Amino acid sequence: MVDIIGQVKKAKEASLVLASARAEIKYLALDNIARAIKKNKDKIIEENRKDVLEARKNKLSKSLLDRLILNEKKIKEIVEMVEEVNRLEDPVGKVMEKMELDTNLNLTKITVPIGLIGAIFESRPDAAVQISSLCIKSGNAVILKPGKEAKNTCKLLVGLIKDSLQKSNLPKEAVQLIETREEVKEILKLHDFIDLLIPRGSNKFIKFIQENSKIPVLGHADGICHVYVDKDADIEKAVKICFDAKCQYAAVCNAMETLLVHKDIAEKFLPLIAEKYFKAGVGIKGDEEARKIIKAEKANEVDWKTEYNDLIISIKIVNSVDEAMRHINKYGSKHTDAMVTENKETASAFLSKVDSSSVLHNCSTRFADGFRYGKGAEVGISTSKIHGRGPLGLEGLVIYKYILKGDGHIVDDYCKGKKTFKHNKK
Amino acid sequence: MVDIIGQVKKAKEASLVLASARAEIKYLALDNIARAIKKNKDKIIEENRKDVLEARKNKLSKSLLDRLILNEKKIKEIVEMVEEVNRLEDPVGKVMEKMELDTNLNLTKITVPIGLIGAIFESRPDAAVQISSLCIKSGNAVILKPGKEAKNTCKLLVGLIKDSLQKSNLPKEAVQLIETREEVKEILKLHDFIDLLIPRGSNKFIKFIQENSKIPVLGHADGICHVYVDKDADIEKAVKICFDAKCQYAAVCNAMETLLVHKDIAEKFLPLIAEKYFKAGVGIKGDEEARKIIKAEKANEVDWKTEYNDLIISIKIVNSVDEAMRHINKYGSKHTDAMVTENKETASAFLSKVDSSSVLHNCSTRFADGFRYGKGAEVGISTSKIHGRGPLGLEGLVIYKYILKGDGHIVDDYCKGKKTFKHNKK
Repeated sequence: MVDIIGQVKKAKEASLVLASARAEIKYLALDNIARAIKKNKDKIIEENRKDVLEARKNKLSKSLLDRLILNEKKIKEIVEMVEEVNRLEDPVGKVMEKMELDTNLNLTKITVPIGLIGAIFESRPDAAVQISSLCIKSGNAVILKPGKEAKNTCKLLVGLIKDSLQKSNLPKEAVQLIETREEVKEILKLHDFIDLLIPRGSNKFIKFIQENSKIPVLGHADGICHVYVDKDADIEKAVKICFDAKCQYAAVCNAMETLLVHKDIAEKFLPLIAEKYFKAGVGIKGDEEARKIIKAEKANEVDWKTEYNDLIISIKIVNSVDEAMRHINKYGSKHTDAMVTENKETASAFLSKVDSSSVLHNCSTRFADGFRYGKGAEVGISTSKIHGRGPLGLEGLVIYKYILKGDGHIVDDYCKGKKTFKHNKK
Repeated sequence: MVDIIGQVKKAKEASLVLASARAEIKYLALDNIARAIKKNKDKIIEENRKDVLEARKNKLSKSLLDRLILNEKKIKEIVEMVEEVNRLEDPVGKVMEKMELDTNLNLTKITVPIGLIGAIFESRPDAAVQISSLCIKSGNAVILKPGKEAKNTCKLLVGLIKDSLQKSNLPKEAVQLIETREEVKEILKLHDFIDLLIPRGSNKFIKFIQENSKIPVLGHADGICHVYVDKDADIEKAVKICFDAKCQYAAVCNAMETLLVHKDIAEKFLPLIAEKYFKAGVGIKGDEEARKIIKAEKANEVDWKTEYNDLIISIKIVNSVDEAMRHINKYGSKHTDAMVTENKETASAFLSKVDSSSVLHNCSTRFADGFRYGKGAEVGISTSKIHGRGPLGLEGLVIYKYILKGDGHIVDDYCKGKKTFKHNKK
């Protein structure tokens, strides 16, 4: 087995160099990466073919195979993505607060990189480039573990990234590739070196990571999102939003899984949306009250906790906005929940009392996404209650430090009353 | 055994009510708490006497006994502390960012409470009141586990807090008391309900919590802080700072444990500080080079990793600022590290490359503290690389949510190119 701890220690050391790298140097590194990928596209496609052949032999599922295959178009997209990340503002070194504690004793709170990131993901080789770019831009080092299906492709890509770092006078050890599952298990134990894990993949995979490491995890396992259609909803808006939230792209985390409908509007609204769902091939499950109005399979307790990630919806009739909120706070995953109403008071209660990372009024849950929220790049969507919440851009990869500059100041003078603090915000 | 899960669930429900409580209501609750403690001071002292008698019987150490005992003066200080927390700005509902995604589609990022906090601490009964006040002010519910030595005192105090919540029309379930170690073990498992743990106590105690729960922990185990005296240091400032950092209060986390001295200044500087340390009764350990200049016990590898929390110092001679920084990043606890120099370039390198929550130039490590940093109240000092870092005030008890308000907006229109995002920062 490779010396994983040695590799991780090297990455940690490199992270300290990257942390104080100037914005222009990091810009140059990403620029070099984009150029190297463009220049080596034929080689990349060649290595990728090896992976694809092997994957076909191993009967990889069609969806995983689709994500694995790189062609000229996909490589062009990867290059554009690197360029896009590079156009974002450098997130490091931003002054968050300034305070004069006393004469010539000045405190500054400034953004800094987190340190060493562990990124574990499935077969997509483009993810290796995306995550490396995000980490370098934000001054973090990264340990990459791509799916083993993408082995040859990722080896070449990471080699190009390392060369580009070196060309920009940054340590090539800042990006490290690990290849086996055994190595992942080792990584999960290294909480003294790795500051944050970013897993990408199935819910099951992310839960496994969360449950088997002391390292903080950025991301979310479940995306059980709701739309609540209130008695005071505009029915036309409600139909549009509920259709978009379920059908625009059903396989993603911000798609709606459960539709909650106020009893007073159910008879008018449900047949309209049910017809649209029926035409789109959506399987409908409903509680007893819903099934009195529309044709639906019986929904049970398990459905309220299920992320279908598919064209299936569970529908429940509620007696009030309070019941809707209680249902969401109980069964939801604190990801994204929306309501449709023209009643401003009801909207205000919902937005304040629903405990989710994104709460929406009169729009589709599908908007909860880093790009749509104007962040340029998305590191992930977090349902955690600390650090970052909701769609995270580069700001999810930085933290801050305090810098205090004095001129021989000692605490004893303040304890003895010889001096007093000014605490002037600047 | 008490129904812990039931208790925690009630607290979680109450946290949702507290989360949307208006600032005035929370103000009233804290005001009621301060009044109730003032009014019931005789009763509190009476209950406290029971605990103190029991503690004496059980031969509690003098320092723990000192922390346990409440008298009129201490109760007055507790009341003042509640009033001080109440004077702080409400940290909830602050707009952090606003963006117009498109016409009538507006995104707001707003601070919200974290939810349910678990606070586990040692014998000090005042901590129960302090943590409850901080949590209520920031809209969080809290599960309190005080040291069993403070059992009777805390029962009464928490009763007064619960009454005060109820008088202010807030759910009394928002503050819950648990009493046994077995219950703590149960609590540590409840990561589905408890969002954050705040342990206070010994390093060993905090490490136990960190290693036995999936719930994020706010705080730090070790405080191994350094002062580096550079070759370009002003010797007078260096002596003052190094004395303050070690001797002003040696038992605390932001006191210096290791002194690093540049070889070019060691012969001039070391005898001066050693004399002051000697007079103050500080035990000096040194590496080989230091022991050529001053009298000191031999320091070994273990010393560089030790938090003495006592009047002991380990001294190492270094050849450069780079060696000092490498030492700090390797052996330090990322808490607080200072340097003394008149050379601006050296200072700038140190402040940028030392990976600690507070980095200081020409001032004492003892400044790293919530009150001294102008935060009013301190929730704790974090050495974590995510969420919060360094001294944390009320901002450590809040996170944010995104609120998106639309007018029937759906994502499909943007995917199909019928509409485009504006992404105007406001």
